[in-house]
Amino acid sequence: MIVSSTASGLPSPHDPRPPVCVLGLGLIGGSLLRAVGAAGRTAWGHARSAATADAAVADGYDAGTDLADALRRADRERAIVVVAVPAPAVDEAFAAIAEHAPNATVTDVVSVKTAVLAAAREHGLTGRYVGGHPMAGTSESGWGAGFPELFRDAVWVVGTEDDSDPDVWTQVAALAFDCGSVVVPAAAVEHDNAVARISHLPHLLAEALAVTADAGGPLALGLAAGSFRDGTRVAATAPGLVNAMCEGNRDALLVALDDALTLLRDARNTLAQESSTAPLVSAGHTARTRYDERTHTVVEGIVPGSDGWTERMRDAGRRGGRLHRPDEDSFM
Amino acid sequence: MIVSSTASGLPSPHDPRPPVCVLGLGLIGGSLLRAVGAAGRTAWGHARSAATADAAVADGYDAGTDLADALRRADRERAIVVVAVPAPAVDEAFAAIAEHAPNATVTDVVSVKTAVLAAAREHGLTGRYVGGHPMAGTSESGWGAGFPELFRDAVWVVGTEDDSDPDVWTQVAALAFDCGSVVVPAAAVEHDNAVARISHLPHLLAEALAVTADAGGPLALGLAAGSFRDGTRVAATAPGLVNAMCEGNRDALLVALDDALTLLRDARNTLAQESSTAPLVSAGHTARTRYDERTHTVVEGIVPGSDGWTERMRDAGRRGGRLHRPDEDSFM
Repeated sequence: MIVSSTASGLPSPHDPRPPVCVLGLGLIGGSLLRAVGAAGRTAWGHARSAATADAAVADGYDAGTDLADALRRADRERAIVVVAVPAPAVDEAFAAIAEHAPNATVTDVVSVKTAVLAAAREHGLTGRYVGGHPMAGTSESGWGAGFPELFRDAVWVVGTEDDSDPDVWTQVAALAFDCGSVVVPAAAVEHDNAVARISHLPHLLAEALAVTADAGGPLALGLAAGSFRDGTRVAATAPGLVNAMCEGNRDALLVALDDALTLLRDARNTLAQESSTAPLVSAGHTARTRYDERTHTVVEGIVPGSDGWTERMRDAGRRGGRLHRPDEDSFM
Repeated sequence: MIVSSTASGLPSPHDPRPPVCVLGLGLIGGSLLRAVGAAGRTAWGHARSAATADAAVADGYDAGTDLADALRRADRERAIVVVAVPAPAVDEAFAAIAEHAPNATVTDVVSVKTAVLAAAREHGLTGRYVGGHPMAGTSESGWGAGFPELFRDAVWVVGTEDDSDPDVWTQVAALAFDCGSVVVPAAAVEHDNAVARISHLPHLLAEALAVTADAGGPLALGLAAGSFRDGTRVAATAPGLVNAMCEGNRDALLVALDDALTLLRDARNTLAQESSTAPLVSAGHTARTRYDERTHTVVEGIVPGSDGWTERMRDAGRRGGRLHRPDEDSFM
């Protein structure tokens, strides 16, 4: 078995920083390939489109269009395979990994986690898969839009299930650290519930606000200022991306949307009956103030693989904890 | 009768740029006193609080706490009185104007217009009152927060009713121009409907989003990024200000809120039944794109007082039209 040399010199599969094989070279995957390269790791990418692969090669990166070839290499070198394809293509990617890279560890950077975890189980990847979600992005897409600093200081959720393998978990966390991110441990379902509230719901509210304001005609749009502009900014996102995100997190989004609908219906009734908006406005101000004043505890001392480590990690995540990159000398 | 000398040298009451008496020296009134002073107009202000009046005087402005005195001077000099007090204090201000300044023209800068117009009629100010609303502000308040450029390039709605007096209307428009704003003509009810959609509804949606996200706990707030921050920015506004705005525009806000609730309920049902968010997301994207690509026609050639001028002005406003400051040589 060929094992690539890594910075730490540890052998696979316990090497926390193995080579990296990136499937999908769009904004996220392309930025990741650049970032881990900049961090000194051996990395190569696969793109379905020859134009994308050619662009990556022209920029000095190792990329190609032969999926089986990229995965067989990942298997030989005990790489970590990062699935960075759009959500609808995850299933096909996992099938190819199951076939061509039975020894590689696997993660992903898709914005929903429950469905991806279920697909990983279905394809028999349990034990060598740990999901991830870097909370980073721009309104651009494609290889050309990527840059190695995209993930710097971002939050990278690392999937933490009861049966998560500690070595794989450590590899995914190290990937996040190498990209400059901090790590928040969370179970897939907790992640999906959280992003429904802070990412998917804001999109639906922005769309509804844009439509309601537009119904006021050019007079209303002509008077629109900061509150409208900020409140509808994400409505400018390409509809296909918004639908994919929201529909991929349907169940959690329904719960968050119902919560918001209840609040707004109650506010409507209080305004109609008591001419007051005070209850909602007061609660909203309190909530936003809590966000502005939030602090993050740094999670330390939970060793992956130690007794109860997944539950302790998740508990720390629930309380707003984050893992920072350890000093190189004491790397996990 | 003492008539102050003005730039155009025209006599009152047809002088479009008479002296200015500002009631209320908070952010808006204080900025207005500074702006018209910078434009070379005679101006003085009234503040209820001695500390505020003293601060204005210390900054070189003409200000005091004797309301009757300020208004009697406005009457003598045929000034335009600008009511810049909080909405709940408008009634009292109009009563004082009716008593002490029977010859002055009157406008206001309050963010709702139907209720203020009704109060003006109630106090017998019809014929010498034309409402206004500069779409400008910051999150700060008080004299100290004001600055003369606050209104530069802002939209200033000028109330345009069937019985609006053309001379008073012209005075209010000139006030907006002197502050560096453009003028959008609109009836009070049209203004209120528009701002319900582009200003008051965004506040309620932001509050609901903040509360719903906060219900996700520290994990959700810890993952929150751009879409949450932008979508909840105005939830940081002082609750008293938000309630005053929203409650003062109750009827129009209920209509806008019902529109948004219908959209969100429909989206909820489509997501639950068809696992799709496409209809709302597509409509929202179209609406936001229309906002980004909106153009403003410059309204010219409608002479206040000419046949059908109020309806022509309102019609232009409905189509997104704006009046720009005329050249000094051809000032209205």
